[in-house]
Amino acid sequence: MSTALTNALKTTSEKVNSLINEIIVDGCEPKSLYDASKHLINAGGKRVRPFLTLKSCEIVSGSEDSALPVAAAIELLHNFTLIHDDIMDEDTKRRGVPTTHIVWDTPLAIIAGDLLFAKVYESVIRRIDMKTVSPLKMVKILDLLTEAAITICEGQTWDMLYEKRDIISEIEYFTMINGKTAALLESSTKAGAIVGGGSSKMVRSLGKFGKYCGLAFQLVDDILGLTSDEETLGKPIGSDIREGKRTLIIVHFLNHASNEEKAKVTSVLGDKTASWGRISNAIKLIDSQGSIEYSKDYANKLINEAKKQLNIFPTSFPKQLLLDLSDYIISRTS
Amino acid sequence: MSTALTNALKTTSEKVNSLINEIIVDGCEPKSLYDASKHLINAGGKRVRPFLTLKSCEIVSGSEDSALPVAAAIELLHNFTLIHDDIMDEDTKRRGVPTTHIVWDTPLAIIAGDLLFAKVYESVIRRIDMKTVSPLKMVKILDLLTEAAITICEGQTWDMLYEKRDIISEIEYFTMINGKTAALLESSTKAGAIVGGGSSKMVRSLGKFGKYCGLAFQLVDDILGLTSDEETLGKPIGSDIREGKRTLIIVHFLNHASNEEKAKVTSVLGDKTASWGRISNAIKLIDSQGSIEYSKDYANKLINEAKKQLNIFPTSFPKQLLLDLSDYIISRTS
Repeated sequence: MSTALTNALKTTSEKVNSLINEIIVDGCEPKSLYDASKHLINAGGKRVRPFLTLKSCEIVSGSEDSALPVAAAIELLHNFTLIHDDIMDEDTKRRGVPTTHIVWDTPLAIIAGDLLFAKVYESVIRRIDMKTVSPLKMVKILDLLTEAAITICEGQTWDMLYEKRDIISEIEYFTMINGKTAALLESSTKAGAIVGGGSSKMVRSLGKFGKYCGLAFQLVDDILGLTSDEETLGKPIGSDIREGKRTLIIVHFLNHASNEEKAKVTSVLGDKTASWGRISNAIKLIDSQGSIEYSKDYANKLINEAKKQLNIFPTSFPKQLLLDLSDYIISRTS
Repeated sequence: MSTALTNALKTTSEKVNSLINEIIVDGCEPKSLYDASKHLINAGGKRVRPFLTLKSCEIVSGSEDSALPVAAAIELLHNFTLIHDDIMDEDTKRRGVPTTHIVWDTPLAIIAGDLLFAKVYESVIRRIDMKTVSPLKMVKILDLLTEAAITICEGQTWDMLYEKRDIISEIEYFTMINGKTAALLESSTKAGAIVGGGSSKMVRSLGKFGKYCGLAFQLVDDILGLTSDEETLGKPIGSDIREGKRTLIIVHFLNHASNEEKAKVTSVLGDKTASWGRISNAIKLIDSQGSIEYSKDYANKLINEAKKQLNIFPTSFPKQLLLDLSDYIISRTS
């Protein structure tokens, strides 16, 4: 990651965390509800989504601070979906800490997520400076966030449904990850550009930049899940296979391998108790089919497509930071 | 219930159901997500909240139809909270049908609720006629709905926390039911009055009307839970006692009974397997302390206070319907 990007992400984190602390104030009651709703936010995260919002506002010549309430709203929306996803997927750890429903319980984690969802709207409605952002613009931003939330619900449902199906197509796969990951990144950039007063063309281009980065981000996530090592990744290698997740790698493999090879991989796919030996053999088979390489190429193409979207903007510091972020997405190792 | 009120509720139901069917269209994908999100809405309900919105719009001389998207949004918000509450309370039946997490599963019911919450905002943002409702007014309405959602989250959390505590005060009790029931009724009337162009004074009065009706509604619910019969009520008498719910009746009893009497009641409070004989004895003890009568008096006072709020409005058909509704709330038997 470039030093400039590292510093800019750090500044974003500080600003967003500080606003979120004002929106979800310590001392609010019932204490357990507010503690639970902030648990995952306090546990860390790179704040990539709010960063996209702030830089998309700046690249269209808006002031970063005017977009801060929207950036915070997007981080709140992201964390709301994580809390509920962790319950649905029965995940016990995230960002190095036990998940919300593990620290408290499922009922409280459900409401903690609901509260964050409501706080998304509070952040935009009550924190935006109505002198710089008109009510009509505010409604447009709320519409964008609402549409993203609906697409995320649909994506998470597809993800759960696909785990029970053998073969899914590439189109089905991309519909799912668009919902699970890319839709919110697309809204992050679009909302920032709207606050900053960007033209429709600018909003559209930045939206595509966010969307392609989001899709690539998910592909890289899936690749690292098979090719990294446990210490760097923070979770066991091949856990996607054990959980039966339909990644592009798996989709490509199942659509191209011989019946015999397919049978070997599907026998471990979704087997939560599969040994490392069987997982490792499955990864080798998948790799020999060229499915990991195919996914890497796809991610590279998406990032190139993302970068192209920024061609309409003259050279500037926020533009460079957005390009740096897209480079980081494809080159990251964890 | 007066014939006029019966007919008006029926008309509200038809209009609101029809708009909700447009917002959550059959044929949307993933099918199971959309089916699950409409399950409880399709199962019935009196549509009291949207009725309050429409009549509050009319009483300030607005046209009923201009408030329809807000009325639908409020019904969606109500149903979102019901789906999540049923998961949290492990309830298996509502409106005569199995609850959403029973028909599908908990993960899908969580997202179905989330989807309805997002659809609340979609309904207001995309369905309101911007020619009659300005963007600033729309933002005010979205702010109201958001505030209600936050108060509902807090109320549901208090409800769960209080089940684990012996003594709660009347103030604590009313904070809880304000969140669980009254806040949304308050927002229903306020939002309708805002759409209709009511003055601040009118919005405030109608808000109080809604709030007091909501509080009384909850008190009557709790009274019927101990004094009705299973066939009329649709659930076993005394189930609040078995579940350990802190109703005003229980709060009054525990704050006034002798230690000996208290011990008898607390021994069945929260005992899910308590026999009808023990429940029946507990109800007799509670009644002899005057706790049921106290609750009835309180509900009557609240309804009188609610009615007073409408004194600022001249006689009109929507005013009469709102008065009829408040009479129905206090006199209903199921």
